[in-house]
Amino acid sequence: MTPHTDAQPTAARPPATRTAAAALPGRPCSIAAALQILGEKWALLAVRELFYGNHRFDRIARNTGAPRDRLTARLRALEEAGVVERRAYSERPPRYEYHLTEAGRDLAPLTQALLAWGDRWVSPEPPVVLHHHPGPSDHPDDSDDHGHPLDATWTCRTCGVEVRSPDLSLEVRSPGWDHHGPTVPDGDAGTAR
Amino acid sequence: MTPHTDAQPTAARPPATRTAAAALPGRPCSIAAALQILGEKWALLAVRELFYGNHRFDRIARNTGAPRDRLTARLRALEEAGVVERRAYSERPPRYEYHLTEAGRDLAPLTQALLAWGDRWVSPEPPVVLHHHPGPSDHPDDSDDHGHPLDATWTCRTCGVEVRSPDLSLEVRSPGWDHHGPTVPDGDAGTAR
Repeated sequence: MTPHTDAQPTAARPPATRTAAAALPGRPCSIAAALQILGEKWALLAVRELFYGNHRFDRIARNTGAPRDRLTARLRALEEAGVVERRAYSERPPRYEYHLTEAGRDLAPLTQALLAWGDRWVSPEPPVVLHHHPGPSDHPDDSDDHGHPLDATWTCRTCGVEVRSPDLSLEVRSPGWDHHGPTVPDGDAGTAR
Repeated sequence: MTPHTDAQPTAARPPATRTAAAALPGRPCSIAAALQILGEKWALLAVRELFYGNHRFDRIARNTGAPRDRLTARLRALEEAGVVERRAYSERPPRYEYHLTEAGRDLAPLTQALLAWGDRWVSPEPPVVLHHHPGPSDHPDDSDDHGHPLDATWTCRTCGVEVRSPDLSLEVRSPGWDHHGPTVPDGDAGTAR
């Protein structure tokens, strides 16, 4: 796997993802744009299996429990969005493996956030534990370094301080929108239920 | 908002979420368990609006673009899972606002990870910029501190080192499973397409 922190959005950005944000309803938002690509659970579970080193369709289907037709559709959409790529490993019969692209590998922080939240709020005991082996080795599994359980936290790279929600403020740059919604309210802006 | 880092999973864990993991297909996994609750895009877009301070149904519907029936179903599921709570603000007629619980506020790193990925790989320009104001003030908006744009990354709290995927290894604790799948292979374990 490649360090996600080295991802560069410029030349490597797949063309397909750039158009995904255009047709969304609601607030212009990168969360919505990301979910347009990722926001169906089989997509992120397939990405999980690719991170775990399982690249073939049958194994991904078995390990996620995804219906095969839904998984096929999700993998195709992820491929079109530039998150996964297919690589042929057999010509006769034609057989493919799925691999994460750079944009796909850059989902590591997102899957870690899901794992941490699920461990904290849903799973009685963590079914999977990540171990952290910081250092020069790129092959921690080959060494005697057993590392320590990962205890990941969001930190701001600029100042080094752990990110806490009360320390954040929001600047809405989309024309015609602010925190609360469209700046020119429509008919139902004042109502609520 | 409350710092997510203070979240404690013990007494505060909502009962409903603890049973969500039981009936899942595929690999026992906290990512799957989390997505069972969150894995439909309107759920996380509703959570986004609650983070932005929009608590009433009509405003959440307008700002997300969610169909009202889908949003109603999602908010009800999030309430049952203990991620949001309804608070009455009018008795006649009965009117409710939606607020994040502690488990809901603890989704901040997840929504930030989605935002960062969408900014990097999908949106041509970030529609929203988070500013970081670390320090003793709990009311950054009231001060002259304009902070700096948030550049968030995962850091390991144990060793202080930024988390890179090559530095991680996986320990699968679920009985009968390893990285690759069930340890007792079923019929299709050797096939692939």
